[in-house]
Amino acid sequence: MEDLYIGLDIGGTKILGALFNAKGEIIGRTKKPSKASKGEAVIFNQVCKVIDSLLESNTGTLKAIGSGVPGVIEDGKIRFSPNLSWKDYPLEQNLRDKYSVPSYVGNDANVSLLGVWKHGLGKGCHNLAGLFVGTGIGGGLVINNAIYGGSTGGAGEIGHMIVVPDGPICGCGARGCLESLASKTAILKMLKSQIERGRNSYFSGLIEQKDYILKSSHLKEAYVGGDEIAIEILDNAASYLGVATASIINLLNPELIVFGGGMMEALGEKMIERIRSKARELAIPGLYETCRIELSVLGDDASLYGALSLIEDGLRISL
Amino acid sequence: MEDLYIGLDIGGTKILGALFNAKGEIIGRTKKPSKASKGEAVIFNQVCKVIDSLLESNTGTLKAIGSGVPGVIEDGKIRFSPNLSWKDYPLEQNLRDKYSVPSYVGNDANVSLLGVWKHGLGKGCHNLAGLFVGTGIGGGLVINNAIYGGSTGGAGEIGHMIVVPDGPICGCGARGCLESLASKTAILKMLKSQIERGRNSYFSGLIEQKDYILKSSHLKEAYVGGDEIAIEILDNAASYLGVATASIINLLNPELIVFGGGMMEALGEKMIERIRSKARELAIPGLYETCRIELSVLGDDASLYGALSLIEDGLRISL
Repeated sequence: MEDLYIGLDIGGTKILGALFNAKGEIIGRTKKPSKASKGEAVIFNQVCKVIDSLLESNTGTLKAIGSGVPGVIEDGKIRFSPNLSWKDYPLEQNLRDKYSVPSYVGNDANVSLLGVWKHGLGKGCHNLAGLFVGTGIGGGLVINNAIYGGSTGGAGEIGHMIVVPDGPICGCGARGCLESLASKTAILKMLKSQIERGRNSYFSGLIEQKDYILKSSHLKEAYVGGDEIAIEILDNAASYLGVATASIINLLNPELIVFGGGMMEALGEKMIERIRSKARELAIPGLYETCRIELSVLGDDASLYGALSLIEDGLRISL
Repeated sequence: MEDLYIGLDIGGTKILGALFNAKGEIIGRTKKPSKASKGEAVIFNQVCKVIDSLLESNTGTLKAIGSGVPGVIEDGKIRFSPNLSWKDYPLEQNLRDKYSVPSYVGNDANVSLLGVWKHGLGKGCHNLAGLFVGTGIGGGLVINNAIYGGSTGGAGEIGHMIVVPDGPICGCGARGCLESLASKTAILKMLKSQIERGRNSYFSGLIEQKDYILKSSHLKEAYVGGDEIAIEILDNAASYLGVATASIINLLNPELIVFGGGMMEALGEKMIERIRSKARELAIPGLYETCRIELSVLGDDASLYGALSLIEDGLRISL
């Protein structure tokens, strides 16, 4: 019987799951809606459905579960998560109790960074920063060869670096955070406001739909298809990402800054080239030259591989 | 015969020297002009004059010399210093050869931070940032209980975090760096531009003087004396320092951010209160609350105590 490991990416919209074999290869995948608004028991039930479905078609022995969750995580508990209705929720323990295997939980941005660092482009780096652009902008830092948590575990909030003083209001209550200028939430707001001004766009019909959620695939179609408004807004977003990148380079002198998340993966090299160009303009040349700025390429798998890394760290094994 | 140690702060304008006894107490001080424009031999001669003058009146045995120098330092050599005419200058070795004692050289901002960390407010902190406001804005980081140099030794350039996209041109060639908005050089430019517009100020006569150098004591007199232009400009500078402070808090979650340098010491609590207020407005509340924002209080002595710390580290002793 083969040893099996499960990695989960529990987001506000969907739960992604991957089944890993003992070589650290993905041998099964599934996803389910998180049903985040339906209460903590329902979300947990959805998590279990993902796990059960992954195990269903495989005859190995489950050895451990790793999970990435947005929000503040302490001692395996979800203290607070803006996108899920979990509060002080003992996810690590509940999974351990239910499946009788070790379970490990981490903040989603840190878990994605871990994936990039251990299984992606960041392999071998001592100092690296990761930006994961989605509904919000998650960030994480590896400093001196370890994930850096700061004094109270809150470090790495790259999405809340102030990029434009007195800029747009951010979900955190401040003004001009990177997240208020370059996240999908910010981009959707800007698309709406341009369309409301009477300009025509690929998105004109879409945003009239009730509860329209901005899809990375739509952004790609509009951007590649030459939609004027989408190009303006995405180019601006890339510039702001470049400004934050320059500040990170000057402050932390990392070897690598990685951009991940669905939007970045979808818009690919075009967007990263603008980020590089802005960072080149603003960062100290000697520091810019020693820092690679790259797409994560692992895509959504960054978080799944990161969840595997949580397991490897927890069990002190290497798959 | 008592053991003696010398700490030097070699700046573009002046060289400060302190004589320490074996208890780490300052028992003598002196300063001389650096004569920075007169070539590398003349600067070195000025450094030696400071050392000789400190030793002159004391009968102990010199055991080591520590020096803080602005610029890029590698292996005890001044690779490049914007304010001194040293290039690839082997200062560490030249002092060792001349005085036959161990000699240690570090970047001035890192040395000042070391002073704050080992002998000042930062004692016992694991994660701290220091901003030293002068002609430029020097910065340094302590991360996980060690001075953080980054991948190639260039980290901690807090003065070159981008605070205002497309802001004023900075000495580094970029636009909108903190240094272009809140250093003494930036403040002098803004004072001039307001006075040229016809506004009256405490500085109106002063800035007509040839080669007028902005003195912290003048800023203090103007600020405390109610000079409208000086108050506007300094309050703005403090706000920008607060914006950078918020970004550092959100990114690095430090326990302490310390402000030093003559201008900060001169303008004291009034300026730091504005910095705190802006950072409180912009940083994530939970991270703001666990971070102290303070004046260094060591004043110019931060760099001298830091030079002593260089010696302590080098000789593996504790004074």
